[in-house]
Amino acid sequence: MSFAGGKNENIKTEMMTSSPYEWLKYCVDLLENFNVLEPSMEKSQRVKKIDFTLNEKCESDDKILKLCEDVIKNSVLTNHPHFHNQLYGGTDPYGLVGGFITEALNTNQVTFEIAPVFTLIESELYRKLSSLIGIINGDGIFSPGGSLNNMYAMVLARYKLNPDIKKKGVYCMNKLVAFTSEDSHYSIMKGVNWIGIGIDNVIKIKTDDFGKMIPDHLEKMIIKTKEEGRVPFFVNVTAGTTVLGAFDPIEIINDICSKYNLWMHVDACWGGSLLFSKKYSKVLKGLNKADSVSWNPHKMLGAPLQCSIFLTKHKEILHECNSASATYLFQQDKFYDVSYDTGDKSVQCGRKVDCFKLWLMWKARGDTGFEKLVDQAMECSRYFKDKITNRPGFQLVLPEFECTNVCFWYIPVRLRNMEQTDEWWNELEKVAPKIKEQLTYAGSLMIGYQPLNHKNFKNFFRMVITCHPIRTYQHMDYVIEQIELWGEKI
Amino acid sequence: MSFAGGKNENIKTEMMTSSPYEWLKYCVDLLENFNVLEPSMEKSQRVKKIDFTLNEKCESDDKILKLCEDVIKNSVLTNHPHFHNQLYGGTDPYGLVGGFITEALNTNQVTFEIAPVFTLIESELYRKLSSLIGIINGDGIFSPGGSLNNMYAMVLARYKLNPDIKKKGVYCMNKLVAFTSEDSHYSIMKGVNWIGIGIDNVIKIKTDDFGKMIPDHLEKMIIKTKEEGRVPFFVNVTAGTTVLGAFDPIEIINDICSKYNLWMHVDACWGGSLLFSKKYSKVLKGLNKADSVSWNPHKMLGAPLQCSIFLTKHKEILHECNSASATYLFQQDKFYDVSYDTGDKSVQCGRKVDCFKLWLMWKARGDTGFEKLVDQAMECSRYFKDKITNRPGFQLVLPEFECTNVCFWYIPVRLRNMEQTDEWWNELEKVAPKIKEQLTYAGSLMIGYQPLNHKNFKNFFRMVITCHPIRTYQHMDYVIEQIELWGEKI
Repeated sequence: MSFAGGKNENIKTEMMTSSPYEWLKYCVDLLENFNVLEPSMEKSQRVKKIDFTLNEKCESDDKILKLCEDVIKNSVLTNHPHFHNQLYGGTDPYGLVGGFITEALNTNQVTFEIAPVFTLIESELYRKLSSLIGIINGDGIFSPGGSLNNMYAMVLARYKLNPDIKKKGVYCMNKLVAFTSEDSHYSIMKGVNWIGIGIDNVIKIKTDDFGKMIPDHLEKMIIKTKEEGRVPFFVNVTAGTTVLGAFDPIEIINDICSKYNLWMHVDACWGGSLLFSKKYSKVLKGLNKADSVSWNPHKMLGAPLQCSIFLTKHKEILHECNSASATYLFQQDKFYDVSYDTGDKSVQCGRKVDCFKLWLMWKARGDTGFEKLVDQAMECSRYFKDKITNRPGFQLVLPEFECTNVCFWYIPVRLRNMEQTDEWWNELEKVAPKIKEQLTYAGSLMIGYQPLNHKNFKNFFRMVITCHPIRTYQHMDYVIEQIELWGEKI
Repeated sequence: MSFAGGKNENIKTEMMTSSPYEWLKYCVDLLENFNVLEPSMEKSQRVKKIDFTLNEKCESDDKILKLCEDVIKNSVLTNHPHFHNQLYGGTDPYGLVGGFITEALNTNQVTFEIAPVFTLIESELYRKLSSLIGIINGDGIFSPGGSLNNMYAMVLARYKLNPDIKKKGVYCMNKLVAFTSEDSHYSIMKGVNWIGIGIDNVIKIKTDDFGKMIPDHLEKMIIKTKEEGRVPFFVNVTAGTTVLGAFDPIEIINDICSKYNLWMHVDACWGGSLLFSKKYSKVLKGLNKADSVSWNPHKMLGAPLQCSIFLTKHKEILHECNSASATYLFQQDKFYDVSYDTGDKSVQCGRKVDCFKLWLMWKARGDTGFEKLVDQAMECSRYFKDKITNRPGFQLVLPEFECTNVCFWYIPVRLRNMEQTDEWWNELEKVAPKIKEQLTYAGSLMIGYQPLNHKNFKNFFRMVITCHPIRTYQHMDYVIEQIELWGEKI
């Protein structure tokens, strides 16, 4: 297929020779027939050979199409069953269709007049999700991701404590202090820098052996902070930590938050998808008591990036705290019901439509379809865990865990059955990066590794299972085979 | 085309019956054959009849496909030549192809290992754009939009003034004060709430008759603020205001910023695209002196939403100010050059790939193609302006302007040739909303209106011309005809 046509001039200002949809059909054929997990090392060299330079003059349509092909072939195929590198991965095919349509309709989630259907879809999603959690009469906003959601939570929490902050800044009261566990996501630290209270005013609460926040330590630190004359205002509870997949005890922490009148935010970006599973959702008990909840359907559930929801049980606060009432968008003399214009709740102005892909997935699968998908991912993680327990060369980081993260060390034969001294650990620390390097050269498996310094854990693998593409036990066996294969060659 | 297949169970967990790409091809046919600007009033009722409810059970694939059709047919077709409602509109077809491919590859602009090609593309875009502006050795970040970019600018500005703020919060110094014009974008107000300094600590600088910031007033207010013991730290200069399309005098304001050691940020989200035009870019003179610049290719240039760039001339500051060094992403013992892992510069963690669509457009068109497109949009706005000047019933809000916004009142015959008293203006104020309502009923034209209260301007139309779809003088004539047609019927 060639798109070379009557376009020989050096400046293209018209539409392309063919319709973009013709191009698209060509590209989807490429995408459909491309099933290599990642650019192997040889390819990685090739990546840098792509002509990235932007010039004064245009390129021919044939060259552009060739570049599309190069980009596709040299990208990581996250939609591959052996991609376990991050908390996201393949996309739900219904979500992908939704994403494509969204892209083509190119509008903005700011007023009803330019996004009539999407406004109603967004509203249905807040209703449905709130009802699943047990939040009554709350409100929500789609945002570009969990980090922004955590900032939403902190900004609303301090506004609720003292609405003057919107006008006067944080200067109008004593230093605000936020609490989060040492295993929580780093976005809390980035967020407190942005919202102006500074990272010294975050207290990191200790976690137990399983990575869960220790409520006693939280209460102690709240009391201490108050004694210092600082003002506790916010507790971030993690439901599914990034590395270990741990769930903080929501109900116990909620009691403490109630006692000291603190906003309880639950960062369920990763673990929130367990909500759909009757079997595995008990770790989310108490979620209905949260002042706010953050959940990323673009993680475990496989909505295409970006798809992230912030919910709060305080109906009017998003609007009260964030509104600026721009007259060129939120005219009050419109001829339709302007309560449909929801954009002023957001800290953004233009806001990409992120709701449609999730809605389409949900329509197509129902709660029960999501449940089956989540259960399947969880079952695979259980199978994986059982299979490496007591298997020579594998050592679990945690004996028990409640999400699909399986953390483990691989110990090559030369290091087995030895005393695990400091020197031994220093040696083992080099193993995971080295195996990862080999896997990348081979292009056969993508899996993450990291240390966890506050637990004194040296580099270990974090195997993550998401809902898409749907994984089987055979995929789990493959991971073990690959780790063993390359682990013994280094 | 039907996708009904062997899928009769109530729970769908597998892939859809056909490949998502088959669906996609069906949907693009729908999209290609759909050319109605907006849901007419009758349709607007129909929107609410769509079954939005999310249920426990799944829907059949046939139903899902029908819903896709309903969503497409009831959405606003921003890619229509008569869509002039916002500062964005149709998409560049090359950008659309780029957006589709991005969606399908579903990865994250956080590390080189999961986004090798896109990392290099992002870097080339910062290089190219910096070079166009005249920024040497700077740095940049793609963000979800202009509002976030303006927050980036303020957060970096205060960090540069006092890096302790990252740790200690804004508590460690006297009240910080930001300056912006009364015609600037409302995101500055939303932003200062979030970053904790409060909207009372923004000084709105007066603008002249053309909507440009008055430098003398800025300097006066800086001096006054210092005398009050507050700390000026940031000036937001607007290059292309939202409503009037005015450009603040960058070079004069830069002199003031230099004199008082203030960070000069240029919000060129809207007007930045004029950079490509030799004929119209003089309004951006001095942009190279900015500490930071924000530009939205998803506005005039027609990159699909979202596509927004923040640039700064201070090479290391994005990383220094925002980094949190998460060990599970930014391992320093990786086998490749970790300087390619750029995600820690961002306040986000997961970050949608927004660069590829712009890069593909730029490759396909070159600087010169962009120039032609921008010039064409500008020429149309000039033609429109000339045509309504002295035309009965039309009154320009500004006699001169430098962007593609054309602001005007329409005066129906019954109100012409009368003294423009307060009562007269109160009557005229109802005209624009009423015409807009009629246009919406008819589904024939989308154009925005708003008052500008600080200028004492009652409701007027803001006609906006973007690069896509490419507009001609005939399209301009059509707008005038439509306004006259409906303006006389009310």
